[in-house]
Amino acid sequence: MLITAGELLENINEPSDLRKLDRSKLPQLADELRQFIIDVVSVYGGHFGASLGVVELSVALHYVFNTPDDQLVWDVGHQAYGHKILTGRRKQFHTNRFYGGISGFPKRKESIFDTFGVGHSSTSISAALGMAVGSMHNGDKKRQHIAVIGDGSMTAGMAFEAMNHAGSLKDANLLIILNDNCMAIDPNVGALKEYLTDITTSQTYNKAKDDIWKLLGKMSHFGKSAREIVQKVENAMKGALLSQSNLFEALNLRYFGPIDGHDLNHMVSVLEDLKNIPGPKILHCLTVKGKGYAPAEKDQTKWHAPGLFDKVTGEIKKKIYDHPMPPKYQDVFGHTIVELAEVNDKIMGVTPAMPSGSSLNIMMKAMPDRAFDVGIAEQHAVTFSAGMATQGLVVYCNIYSTFMQRAYDQVIHDVCIQELPVIFCLDRAGFAGADGPTHHGAYDIAYMRCIPNMVIAAPMNEEELRNMMYTFQLEEIQKLKTAFTIRYPRGEGVLPDWRRPLRKILIGKGQKIKDGSDIAILTIGHVGNYAVQACEALQRDGISAAHYDLRFVKPLDEALLHEVFQQFDKVLTVEDGCVKGGMGSAVLEFMADHEYTAKVKRLGIPDRIVEHGEQIELHHECGFDPEGIANAAREMVSNRVLVY
Amino acid sequence: MLITAGELLENINEPSDLRKLDRSKLPQLADELRQFIIDVVSVYGGHFGASLGVVELSVALHYVFNTPDDQLVWDVGHQAYGHKILTGRRKQFHTNRFYGGISGFPKRKESIFDTFGVGHSSTSISAALGMAVGSMHNGDKKRQHIAVIGDGSMTAGMAFEAMNHAGSLKDANLLIILNDNCMAIDPNVGALKEYLTDITTSQTYNKAKDDIWKLLGKMSHFGKSAREIVQKVENAMKGALLSQSNLFEALNLRYFGPIDGHDLNHMVSVLEDLKNIPGPKILHCLTVKGKGYAPAEKDQTKWHAPGLFDKVTGEIKKKIYDHPMPPKYQDVFGHTIVELAEVNDKIMGVTPAMPSGSSLNIMMKAMPDRAFDVGIAEQHAVTFSAGMATQGLVVYCNIYSTFMQRAYDQVIHDVCIQELPVIFCLDRAGFAGADGPTHHGAYDIAYMRCIPNMVIAAPMNEEELRNMMYTFQLEEIQKLKTAFTIRYPRGEGVLPDWRRPLRKILIGKGQKIKDGSDIAILTIGHVGNYAVQACEALQRDGISAAHYDLRFVKPLDEALLHEVFQQFDKVLTVEDGCVKGGMGSAVLEFMADHEYTAKVKRLGIPDRIVEHGEQIELHHECGFDPEGIANAAREMVSNRVLVY
Repeated sequence: MLITAGELLENINEPSDLRKLDRSKLPQLADELRQFIIDVVSVYGGHFGASLGVVELSVALHYVFNTPDDQLVWDVGHQAYGHKILTGRRKQFHTNRFYGGISGFPKRKESIFDTFGVGHSSTSISAALGMAVGSMHNGDKKRQHIAVIGDGSMTAGMAFEAMNHAGSLKDANLLIILNDNCMAIDPNVGALKEYLTDITTSQTYNKAKDDIWKLLGKMSHFGKSAREIVQKVENAMKGALLSQSNLFEALNLRYFGPIDGHDLNHMVSVLEDLKNIPGPKILHCLTVKGKGYAPAEKDQTKWHAPGLFDKVTGEIKKKIYDHPMPPKYQDVFGHTIVELAEVNDKIMGVTPAMPSGSSLNIMMKAMPDRAFDVGIAEQHAVTFSAGMATQGLVVYCNIYSTFMQRAYDQVIHDVCIQELPVIFCLDRAGFAGADGPTHHGAYDIAYMRCIPNMVIAAPMNEEELRNMMYTFQLEEIQKLKTAFTIRYPRGEGVLPDWRRPLRKILIGKGQKIKDGSDIAILTIGHVGNYAVQACEALQRDGISAAHYDLRFVKPLDEALLHEVFQQFDKVLTVEDGCVKGGMGSAVLEFMADHEYTAKVKRLGIPDRIVEHGEQIELHHECGFDPEGIANAAREMVSNRVLVY
Repeated sequence: MLITAGELLENINEPSDLRKLDRSKLPQLADELRQFIIDVVSVYGGHFGASLGVVELSVALHYVFNTPDDQLVWDVGHQAYGHKILTGRRKQFHTNRFYGGISGFPKRKESIFDTFGVGHSSTSISAALGMAVGSMHNGDKKRQHIAVIGDGSMTAGMAFEAMNHAGSLKDANLLIILNDNCMAIDPNVGALKEYLTDITTSQTYNKAKDDIWKLLGKMSHFGKSAREIVQKVENAMKGALLSQSNLFEALNLRYFGPIDGHDLNHMVSVLEDLKNIPGPKILHCLTVKGKGYAPAEKDQTKWHAPGLFDKVTGEIKKKIYDHPMPPKYQDVFGHTIVELAEVNDKIMGVTPAMPSGSSLNIMMKAMPDRAFDVGIAEQHAVTFSAGMATQGLVVYCNIYSTFMQRAYDQVIHDVCIQELPVIFCLDRAGFAGADGPTHHGAYDIAYMRCIPNMVIAAPMNEEELRNMMYTFQLEEIQKLKTAFTIRYPRGEGVLPDWRRPLRKILIGKGQKIKDGSDIAILTIGHVGNYAVQACEALQRDGISAAHYDLRFVKPLDEALLHEVFQQFDKVLTVEDGCVKGGMGSAVLEFMADHEYTAKVKRLGIPDRIVEHGEQIELHHECGFDPEGIANAAREMVSNRVLVY
């Protein structure tokens, strides 16, 4: 379907075209840009609300600043659709997030206007500060470096670390634009959010400051001695209020705002002014997530990434199936934790800013005192969980696999070394799909299994996820002085009838799924279902493949592996995770320790950056979809030369 | 040597004894505690200045709070010597940091008074908040939860994440004690430090607040209308100043202070008061690192952990050698980066709060505009480096191996995915020694080698470190679209004559150190020198061992490995890193990919928490000191049964 842009937008092939427009035309351009985003996303999908909220800001930034020479960094980047469209990717925009298409996030390889690759939150200030210091060192004093960061991203410690540093580099040409829409994907949380709200309401800071100034003005009627006192009060006020009264100014960043982020004309003027003010500074813009599209303004979480929708009625298109569908793994987690917590009073839940993404929102609603959204703060989430665990509580800390990379030290230092039985639930493990390389949960098996005092499991289906969750909270299991990790993928499982009775499983015990004689296939997690299909295909070719689901990467099921290696001289391992250091390598270590010499091929995520696409497309590309598994097995079986 | 405690301290076997003392006796107890720390540390070594700075605070906390029921968390924990001595470990204190002795940090296994294990900074607020929420959930409303955190630790984002959360939990019984001594190990840096200094000087906040109140008082002379105005000004002021004017109050934490952290009497009173104020709050204490020992007050960085010293003269005892000694690896780094930067104008250096520990202070002194201490902020350090790299600069980002765990996501997301050629120098890789399990750099090979676009090298000696540093900054190497990691251990190398001409090495090329025929030993990094000794011992036993130094874990030297596996059916791998997922596993992966079936034994750090001790003691315990390597080789060679 061809989607046409409005008459102005149609002629913007790069920001220099935009900068030729008369300023009076900018609101029309913004309207066209907004409409184009609505038109395309409603038909092709993608993130939505965040980009609508920064349409005016995107136009203003490219109008005022000399991009790409001036360096613009978008934090997270799912709000950068307008930026992409204005910087030469209008005609590719319908390929956004599709396999082989443009990325849903800014990406250095894709465009010179994407100065820094993003995806995870709160990196923009550090990156832009590094750029600013780089420009200083390169002798370029005019170049501007702009980080656009949301209020949600501001809750992550990394943003604070960067501001603390920026505030001490008074010559760095850094402009932080705080895009304050009171939202992460879910509503923003924490004290900072309240503070930002306070700033923008008349009750406190600005209003008070104005009031005091006005009142002091009135007092100058009272004769000379009063005027002197007023003067002194004013001076003291300046010291106290102006230099100390703002969180950001406390960090030595000059604070401007708040301004209306949808008043394009005013924003252009303010940015023009700021361009001429040297040093690190912050502009506070108030925006509305989903701005200009009523349903999205109304339910901002739902419209963060709504899928396809009817742009006229605002109806989100749901796929309709003629048979019962399996649930998403995340929903199995969300319902099961509530089911368990109803029985076990010690259970608590933690998510860093992903209530809806993890489905912990189900527990937050049912048991608000026992489930916490701590903000975009993975490090804190893990150690906060550890602190609760010291008090005898059973904590499920749910973090996407890719975001757990941010709390790696806390897992080692605050949980595993201390033998605290926190249960980590790593959602989106394996390929994340359309979000691409920044979001793939590729490394968790490798980075978790080298840590002592850690059990690592992955369910092959919904029932297993429930049983793992059930098992790890049992009193005798919590006493094992180990942490627990359960990794499971984005999306649906395989069992429409998933709510089965909870059953204890044995730690470190895998299961034989299918007997066979020519080759053994070892799998971990959901991709075991691919192996089931592969085994069927092999059967049709007369190849008898055994299939074992390891269930645990750590501890390995040694009895099962002895059985496998005593019986088979060809073994295929399959995992939705990196092959360097992953489950397959754990199997190789077992073999070396026990002096087995079977031929082993490891399937999984290769040692390169894999781009975005549907999960199954990526599995296919990397050769571990059902067809890839079957092909690898065929190849191993047909090659009957024994190697010693 | 028996070190006796003063008359009061001698009878304090746990805090309940302390709480029986009359308050008037506390200053004497503090003096005795300080003297005992000086007496013991001067003879047995350990951290020094930090504990002296909190002697009064330690006494006051255990006097006022009902430890261990009230939960006391020490951030970092090297300041907790007084706490350890007061909580039943006086008689073991001389074993502090020795192999088999007590830990230099609070540790849950060691004492019920150590409520949370620490070592890395900035975890205490998260942990104590988790405890406070746990107590709430357990129905205990009286229990207190206290985090003692330094101003250095406050610069880490994690502390901010925790405060942001704490400020939204108004019922949590959390007391944060900001131990403000203007220091990390090196002087604290960043905007926050300036802010804290501002708070404590009379020029701004407090003084201004007082002044305004006083002046407003004077104005009430001017009749009714003036009084009304004064009233309004006061109300506005309260809104503006009291609720908004403090960084911490902006985060909804009630702020108290600053108070003198050495005025024991006053501190006891203040803590008594705070005990009865519910909700999250912060007490700002000003302390002097090294307090009460003049040389330590004067040069605080040097006296952070001075080694042994003469307590009377303040002379630090230096070991005297009758032959030239090899330098520390860190100093080779520090001198070499300056040497390289003098030639290559694009070179920059970054350290998160370890100028003296990494020896980047040499460059910071020589080239202050090109070397940055960014504070305790590993996440920012990495992404800031990435930002500079986008501007064509060559950045050496020096982070201890154990602290790099805190920037793991940034390495993946901001450097490797973006193909930026940042050079990571991981100091203290392998066993850290006396600092123990929180500080061992055990996991870096495993967690780094699973990341694409990453070269990983480890030098066997000082010359190799220099050559790796030289090679990675070369223009043609910087263009390879990969990041670089160099890992090297704490302490000295092996070459007294280390300043040799710089030479380019080939990426991914190892070297044969010694020919042999019975077994091949593959090593990475400094432990290669152990293998040299082991080979000599084996030679004396008539065993001919070949020795290969891989130099690179990634990419592996495949030509070298083909040579090894075509020639040897027994291979021993040795690394100062975890055996799960480490270099040895990389070798196993190579074997599987190329269908080699030699018998391989992997030596390295086992899959359990290894406690503290001298590095060589730990290497011995884990069987990869020279003797352990030789023994392992002997065993493999003597066991001549071939396994297929």
